[in-house]
Amino acid sequence: MSEGTVVEVKKALSGAIPAGTPVTVRGWVRTRRDSKAGLSFVALSDGSCFDPIQIVAANTLANYADEISRLGSGCSVIASGTLVASQGKGQGFEIQASAIEVTGWVDDPETYPIQPKPHSLEFLREVAHLRPRTNLFGAVTRVRHTIANAIHRFFHENGFFWVNTPIITTSDAEGAGQMFRVSTLDLMNLPRTERGAIDFHRDFFGREAFLTVSGQLNAEAYCLALSKVYTFGPTFRAENSNTARHLAEFWMIEPEIAFADLDQDASLAEALLKYVFKAVLDERPDDMAFFAERIEKTAVSRLEGFLAAPFARIDYSEAIDILARSGKAFEYPVAWGADLQTEHERYLAEEHVGRPVVVMNYPEKIKAFYMRLNDDGRTVAAMDVLAPGIGEIVGGAQREERLDLLDARMAQFGLDPAHYQWYRDLRRYGSVPHAGFGLGFERLVVYVCGLSNIRDAIPYPRAPGQAEY
Amino acid sequence: MSEGTVVEVKKALSGAIPAGTPVTVRGWVRTRRDSKAGLSFVALSDGSCFDPIQIVAANTLANYADEISRLGSGCSVIASGTLVASQGKGQGFEIQASAIEVTGWVDDPETYPIQPKPHSLEFLREVAHLRPRTNLFGAVTRVRHTIANAIHRFFHENGFFWVNTPIITTSDAEGAGQMFRVSTLDLMNLPRTERGAIDFHRDFFGREAFLTVSGQLNAEAYCLALSKVYTFGPTFRAENSNTARHLAEFWMIEPEIAFADLDQDASLAEALLKYVFKAVLDERPDDMAFFAERIEKTAVSRLEGFLAAPFARIDYSEAIDILARSGKAFEYPVAWGADLQTEHERYLAEEHVGRPVVVMNYPEKIKAFYMRLNDDGRTVAAMDVLAPGIGEIVGGAQREERLDLLDARMAQFGLDPAHYQWYRDLRRYGSVPHAGFGLGFERLVVYVCGLSNIRDAIPYPRAPGQAEY
Repeated sequence: MSEGTVVEVKKALSGAIPAGTPVTVRGWVRTRRDSKAGLSFVALSDGSCFDPIQIVAANTLANYADEISRLGSGCSVIASGTLVASQGKGQGFEIQASAIEVTGWVDDPETYPIQPKPHSLEFLREVAHLRPRTNLFGAVTRVRHTIANAIHRFFHENGFFWVNTPIITTSDAEGAGQMFRVSTLDLMNLPRTERGAIDFHRDFFGREAFLTVSGQLNAEAYCLALSKVYTFGPTFRAENSNTARHLAEFWMIEPEIAFADLDQDASLAEALLKYVFKAVLDERPDDMAFFAERIEKTAVSRLEGFLAAPFARIDYSEAIDILARSGKAFEYPVAWGADLQTEHERYLAEEHVGRPVVVMNYPEKIKAFYMRLNDDGRTVAAMDVLAPGIGEIVGGAQREERLDLLDARMAQFGLDPAHYQWYRDLRRYGSVPHAGFGLGFERLVVYVCGLSNIRDAIPYPRAPGQAEY
Repeated sequence: MSEGTVVEVKKALSGAIPAGTPVTVRGWVRTRRDSKAGLSFVALSDGSCFDPIQIVAANTLANYADEISRLGSGCSVIASGTLVASQGKGQGFEIQASAIEVTGWVDDPETYPIQPKPHSLEFLREVAHLRPRTNLFGAVTRVRHTIANAIHRFFHENGFFWVNTPIITTSDAEGAGQMFRVSTLDLMNLPRTERGAIDFHRDFFGREAFLTVSGQLNAEAYCLALSKVYTFGPTFRAENSNTARHLAEFWMIEPEIAFADLDQDASLAEALLKYVFKAVLDERPDDMAFFAERIEKTAVSRLEGFLAAPFARIDYSEAIDILARSGKAFEYPVAWGADLQTEHERYLAEEHVGRPVVVMNYPEKIKAFYMRLNDDGRTVAAMDVLAPGIGEIVGGAQREERLDLLDARMAQFGLDPAHYQWYRDLRRYGSVPHAGFGLGFERLVVYVCGLSNIRDAIPYPRAPGQAEY
């Protein structure tokens, strides 16, 4: 038996290894078909790229009858042989096997969930531990990785520092309610105060603690020392909404830049998104071609379009005028002071501008307390990046760096300044204009891959009633 | 006023910009001192590198008396002027200011917590939002980022995919107890079953849910489809231990490789650690020099030593012999079957071998259920990487890929196979030998920076009674 060097399928298919070289590949069988001439063709995937490699096994191999001829989807094998130019169309290389060792069989192949046939996405969510073995989820995993890696690379190359903001927190960035409690209290024997309330002094952290909804406030503190920082970590919403657009646990990217205004913030978002999309197109043409063919036919072209031109930038007030004049019958009324709905966002990006558009300077009443009040007194320096095909993909703002105005905003929102003393300190000690945004990672994966359900953009989705695995 | 291009302090100091060029820098004042000749020297940091840049301001500047002469630690400024070769020793460049605009003052400078003097680490933990403004925590932040970035780069270059395993989970990798509960139940009004127990069917996820202690089991599922994956995310331990070595929330890196045994696992750990340490030495000589000078005098030399030679590899049984023959009076007795204590680990790495050592094949009774039973029937294919100066830095294992043996181990540990059906599936469907390890990120930061308390290695530490900010 000639055993060549172990190589990834990606490399064996790449043309980097001359035909005639002995190689060994290892992975999982996708399909096996047999020819009348006594050959078996085994499609073998190791996940390193979209395509499997074809292994040609002659019935003269010692274990042909006992093993090779019984191989089916999901079996794991180590195949050695000679790399040769493929006779078939499309594939550049295949392996003429000198030996195929079966590493692992499939118990009861009839009931193995990942058959070589189309499965519904709903079904695959029920076997989240096996779905990465499918074409679709293999591709999503590689593209998700590529996006994440490009994000880290972009920030690193541009002098940003990754800051791991806390997951367990006693603050709440948005003043919003829907948070998960984190506790070690014994629910069958809760400690009580004299007045009958739960005694959180006896909980692990000595007070009520929750899962973070955003790392922004914590990142601001680091921004005001290191100038350019970003977070990239999990965030949580205990919203009881079972939709294709919501997860209880999702990853978020939140850069924060010092000495920056809203325009610079928008430029950063544009540069980041373009860098990421270019990386995906450059590094994963195989997976992207699959998405375009099977999932969303514009998957590649819309990313190319995204790269082709600068984002448009319009004021919220202008956006309201455009929507009002559009003649469209929107479900939600268009009026200055109301937030834009997805239908409005998509009209602006898809029909009016025809490319990504940054809407800036929203009414102060509908935006968070930390956003910077504009001189008009009725808008804040907030922005949303709206993209054709998805709507809002980035939301950001210049932060209110003036303590008196921040305090006024907190009072307006009914927030207790005592809970925000450390955040107020950032305005008391060397405050500077600064800005940042949030980018939902899974929404980005959904957009790039053309998926229709966000639960397919994360390995193990968490939603109401769902935390298996 | 001549306004030059805005540049980072790092770039201004790097020599990449010719003397005589007009530049603008922005950041926070570290110190100001005044000369009798009517000049003020302002040390300005923007966090981009360890050193501040010196701004030389003459008393002829318009706002000299009112503003510049009042600048103190923590004030934020935008300084424009001409980059010139520095007269002072050590520093290559400084800026002869043509204008200094004060962006933010410090409220009540007397009480500003970050004075230009040494602070205790205990005190700085009380002002975690301001401590990144100190030399030490600026350096830790940059080095932490550099380590994280090098980790992502290492895996990406080696064909690994980053997999985000779930934070909220209903499994428990170690069969260990100390987990944080995640819940949205109203504690003042807990739902009960007919028999009086808590009715978790009415909790958010429809059952008891916790914060993850490890992504390993979930990563294994992806490994058995994509061959090479890694996690890098937060993990949690609700241990009530207030020590310098424990955090309730910490980040962990867990690679998992298919078709690999324990030796290959150890080689991966060695390659990763060396890659990371080389990156730190190459990319952050400024911060590392500071650590060596102020924190731990071997900070640089021990990383260089780490890179200089292959790790030693010895069997656990051999390690026990070495310890027994050492003549050392250990606090914990040395006996085959007992786990190694830190004193043993440090003796092996520091005194016996004098460099990092991988101890392999531990008694099966003291290791987790998923570790692969060796042919001797009494050890498992587990490994720990022990490093001089810290002890265990990596713990890993080849996984039990044989279903019957895995089931036997689960029975031995009293684990209910019903909770692990999906994990058992990975052995039923195309099982392959595979291995991986866990690397605690903050322990790595502690080691690289020479810190003595792990709470200084993460921006916002979480520990019993501590979840501020």
